[in-house]
Amino acid sequence: MSDPKYRTIKFLPGGREVEVEEGETIIKAARRAGIHINASCGGSGVCGKCRILVEEGEVCEGISEKLSAKDIEAGYRLACSAIIKGDLTVRVPVESGLHGGGLGIAVPIRHRASMHVYDIEDLREEGIFSPPVEKLFLELPRATETNNMADASRVIQGLANQYDKRRIIIALPVLRKIRRALRQDDFRVTVTLANPVRAGKTYMVDIQPGNCIRRNFGLSFDIGTTTVYGILLDLNSGKILAEAGKYNGQLSYGEDVISRIVYAEKAEGLDVMQKLVVDTINSIINQLLKEALPSNDGEQEGVLREEINSITLAGNTTMTHLLLHLEPDNIRRTPYVPVTTFLPPFRAQDLGINLSRHCVALNYPSISSYVGGDIVAGVMGSGMYRTDRLTLYIDIGTNAEIVIGNREWLVCAACSAGPAFEGGGITHGMRAANGAIEDFSLNPVTFEPMNITIGNKPPLGICGSGLLLIVATLFEQSVIDRRGKFNRTLSSSRIRKGRSGYEFVLAWREENGTDNDIVINEVDIENLIRAKEAIYAGVKTLVEEVGLQITDLEQIILAGAFGSYIDLDAAMTIGLLPEVDSERILYVGNGSLMGAWMSEMSTHIRRDVVEVVRRMTSFELSEVSEFKDQYIASQFLPHTDINLFPGVRSRLAEINVSDP
Amino acid sequence: MSDPKYRTIKFLPGGREVEVEEGETIIKAARRAGIHINASCGGSGVCGKCRILVEEGEVCEGISEKLSAKDIEAGYRLACSAIIKGDLTVRVPVESGLHGGGLGIAVPIRHRASMHVYDIEDLREEGIFSPPVEKLFLELPRATETNNMADASRVIQGLANQYDKRRIIIALPVLRKIRRALRQDDFRVTVTLANPVRAGKTYMVDIQPGNCIRRNFGLSFDIGTTTVYGILLDLNSGKILAEAGKYNGQLSYGEDVISRIVYAEKAEGLDVMQKLVVDTINSIINQLLKEALPSNDGEQEGVLREEINSITLAGNTTMTHLLLHLEPDNIRRTPYVPVTTFLPPFRAQDLGINLSRHCVALNYPSISSYVGGDIVAGVMGSGMYRTDRLTLYIDIGTNAEIVIGNREWLVCAACSAGPAFEGGGITHGMRAANGAIEDFSLNPVTFEPMNITIGNKPPLGICGSGLLLIVATLFEQSVIDRRGKFNRTLSSSRIRKGRSGYEFVLAWREENGTDNDIVINEVDIENLIRAKEAIYAGVKTLVEEVGLQITDLEQIILAGAFGSYIDLDAAMTIGLLPEVDSERILYVGNGSLMGAWMSEMSTHIRRDVVEVVRRMTSFELSEVSEFKDQYIASQFLPHTDINLFPGVRSRLAEINVSDP
Repeated sequence: MSDPKYRTIKFLPGGREVEVEEGETIIKAARRAGIHINASCGGSGVCGKCRILVEEGEVCEGISEKLSAKDIEAGYRLACSAIIKGDLTVRVPVESGLHGGGLGIAVPIRHRASMHVYDIEDLREEGIFSPPVEKLFLELPRATETNNMADASRVIQGLANQYDKRRIIIALPVLRKIRRALRQDDFRVTVTLANPVRAGKTYMVDIQPGNCIRRNFGLSFDIGTTTVYGILLDLNSGKILAEAGKYNGQLSYGEDVISRIVYAEKAEGLDVMQKLVVDTINSIINQLLKEALPSNDGEQEGVLREEINSITLAGNTTMTHLLLHLEPDNIRRTPYVPVTTFLPPFRAQDLGINLSRHCVALNYPSISSYVGGDIVAGVMGSGMYRTDRLTLYIDIGTNAEIVIGNREWLVCAACSAGPAFEGGGITHGMRAANGAIEDFSLNPVTFEPMNITIGNKPPLGICGSGLLLIVATLFEQSVIDRRGKFNRTLSSSRIRKGRSGYEFVLAWREENGTDNDIVINEVDIENLIRAKEAIYAGVKTLVEEVGLQITDLEQIILAGAFGSYIDLDAAMTIGLLPEVDSERILYVGNGSLMGAWMSEMSTHIRRDVVEVVRRMTSFELSEVSEFKDQYIASQFLPHTDINLFPGVRSRLAEINVSDP
Repeated sequence: MSDPKYRTIKFLPGGREVEVEEGETIIKAARRAGIHINASCGGSGVCGKCRILVEEGEVCEGISEKLSAKDIEAGYRLACSAIIKGDLTVRVPVESGLHGGGLGIAVPIRHRASMHVYDIEDLREEGIFSPPVEKLFLELPRATETNNMADASRVIQGLANQYDKRRIIIALPVLRKIRRALRQDDFRVTVTLANPVRAGKTYMVDIQPGNCIRRNFGLSFDIGTTTVYGILLDLNSGKILAEAGKYNGQLSYGEDVISRIVYAEKAEGLDVMQKLVVDTINSIINQLLKEALPSNDGEQEGVLREEINSITLAGNTTMTHLLLHLEPDNIRRTPYVPVTTFLPPFRAQDLGINLSRHCVALNYPSISSYVGGDIVAGVMGSGMYRTDRLTLYIDIGTNAEIVIGNREWLVCAACSAGPAFEGGGITHGMRAANGAIEDFSLNPVTFEPMNITIGNKPPLGICGSGLLLIVATLFEQSVIDRRGKFNRTLSSSRIRKGRSGYEFVLAWREENGTDNDIVINEVDIENLIRAKEAIYAGVKTLVEEVGLQITDLEQIILAGAFGSYIDLDAAMTIGLLPEVDSERILYVGNGSLMGAWMSEMSTHIRRDVVEVVRRMTSFELSEVSEFKDQYIASQFLPHTDINLFPGVRSRLAEINVSDP
């Protein structure tokens, strides 16, 4: 894959410049430059509102029946479909831009969290790169009449003498291989050891003739409710050799954990659930191995299934229960008691995972029914447990899991946000897929929107990050008030009374990909507020439970798919996230997978996991009396107490929205 | 089974009395009283030489065509078949007894080793009755909203609080049961714990609802080359509930370990050997469970297969290799390297043993290729490792395993005795089965023998203990000299030149159960001498290697089937055993099974096993230069240096055999 080329786009009449990747659309470049271009149809060329004039440079596409031959010849294109091929100068005509073409009111620049990257070199430098399964090479003395100790004793003595390794247990399958392995290459062997996490015995899980210490591979998996991700690692270099993800096979039995639990309660339901997730894992392993096949030129040796010595898995408590065939029913019933939070190491084969018999599996421990191994893994993977800063770690989905603390202490809780962020309970809500409105701005005079959809397709609905932006924008532009109710004095055909109260038409039927106008109504907004309300109240309650203030938070780490897409200003504008300098907000990506990867790399990290889990105090928010008050106080945009959001207050003032 | 009744038998004319069990034959009573009665046919009534007159009391049988109706009416019976029914007075007529009827020369009384019995109460008194798998009852608090820890954590906390048990690992199958077990009887459960032998983790191997701590059972097995024995134990009381033994299914592939190893080297040979011994074990388990079925009256509850929580197995190194499917070929090849001596605990099911998945299996460790787990178990079971006395532990078979030492130190070695003691390499040698001559005395004037066979059958051959007696008797009576050569000046039709040198006819063809005269010849005697030579030289070499003298030995412990049958005086007369007061010679029976039983009862003993194995120094006799000299010096009866056998010397003098 060649590196992306960056091109400079200059927008007239204002003269703003922005650098974007070649191949991007002009409308996205405009959005990034903070320039509003009317666009209702999401980039399918249907509405024809986003006409721009390319004055200099080269584009391709951007041509539509909405443009006359003369326009095209003159250089007019549709911004939503015109693809950048080089440096450009683009003019936004009056009719396409902000009212009057003045471009006087800037559209806010989007701030997203920067990606937190954990470097394998960091681990090395800290001296904690020590895969839990290691291979050691032994050159042993030959058996003679004066040295005829048993084969197993010879190997154990070699480990003590050459590597100071003691308390070795040789598993039965290894005992069965030891005689041949020793004699195949003149008493030169490679042993595979599964080191104890804490003081304890070391298990010899394999023995091979000759020196093959270079061939040591591992897997890390994130078992998500929706998607399962796996990576294949070289345990010598720490290098990721392949990555793959697939929908969790359980998905056809329900989208959320509750529906999976309900199914698992049926006769043989647990068997079905277990098999589906194991099949998904096996299918991903097959794909990883396929990607890591030996190359014809011999450059890449490839990885064989039997060379995988270790697998680390992280998932939420329900996914972990289903994977291990543990009855999950009490997870959904008060008082929400999981079968277990700690998990012993076991053999991957014992779960039906198609790896060699000696492959060791480690499952991330959970904290409670709703703060699972995925969150613990995220706390590890993000390095939160080692920072001095008071940090909020938050994974937003149907449930939002919250961890607050630093290297000294950690508290956690789960709050039920409802499905709004995943498009659930929203009239035109949808998952983040092609056609979902993911970016948005609004002409505050004409109320013409700029809808940017995933894949430049005609709008089909609104995804979570789009919803956040739409509500924040409507609020900033005073189209809705602090309670989320529409300003009924505004005169626009887009604002109207619908079946569920007042609504705003984002895309007319003829401009979108559905048979209806795509709208957002007061019930939708109420659902979003309820979701953010639960999360903010949860965070504030937790912080105050440990005697601190929410304003003491110094850092936010966002996990989960949602975290990478949300606009930070919008999230604060509606009061979803507490206010923190946006540079102090990091996106950890798939924190669960990152934690699994780190544990696969370091016995030290595994040891730390045990400590972190011991240290992590779990709160049941429903059992904390203050939570209800916090909840009620959070039901305004951004909050009853606007002083908690000084940045939002001043931004609202800047864009001339007076405090109600 | 009712207790045996003892009867007093008085023999005339000498008046000697002896107590024997009712149901015994008169000839055996005579033998015990030290009275010779001519008897060639082993008790089948063919020779008719053993006529005796019952003067008082009641017998049954003993009637033969060799007796006239008048004789029978007068009270004459054949001693070999007359069964004792009450107290008797019996007269041995001149023609049946020693020459001239004078009974002047006493036949030596047989001295056998007394049985060593280990009492479970001893273990209790010493505070080391602590089965490695224990059951504990927990009454746990119910799950509530303020106490909603995971099920597994609740159990672990209960163990810590109620029993101070920590570092618990819950195996996956137990995690899968824990939820139901807790709720079936209101959070009252019984957990089964496999305690560590040394400091380490405790594995929770089962959980059951309610209180069932009484139901805890174990098995102990001795895996013999010929026979496999098993016992079923109540791990609460220590009581043996059932015992069973069966021929090792491998027997049809060869009688000794070498032939088993040879077979295991063939393609799939090891699979076959492994399956055969596991099938034997499974068949014994079935029988043990059948014997321990619940009784109809409800007195005995019976034992269910899934209530067996633990099994301990002991066997020689080859048997252990075959059981564990370890390639045994190097055991028979110089430098005799086994695959392993130490064995980790494993799951019984992993070997194919038909017990529940949670049943823990422990295999006795070996010392070397030819000093196996059976010997280590014997050292444990006999208490040798705890005695102050300098002890010789010896298990005589094709190989004789020797352990010398006390509570401070232990040395061991194996010596190849050859098959003479098992009837191999002896012209008319046979196993100890019906028809085998097992006891013997000789009329020194007429050379008429008294052959006593197993089962009072016509003689078919000579078993090991009989062989020992025959050679010792011939030597004592000067029929053979110290080199084992016949005194060719004696005139008797029984002493003649045969195909393999001179021979002695024990039973004429017409008096025995074969088509030939049963003889013992000089080659047979040479083979026996070679066997005892190897053993004695081994013992002496070992003792001297640690700087002691053979006369320092204070105690002998005999193990194995052979040990219970041999006449101690005869064994010393031929120089097989060093001279020790016969009261200091104990017979430990199946030492291997006893050791397995003790380990099944006591974690302390298991811990001691590890120590004992570490302490036990193994010698390869072939590598000790003195061994060859010792070997040569032992090739006389009893030894080149008669001073090593002062007791034998004086006994020989007593029975008027002059030192050659």
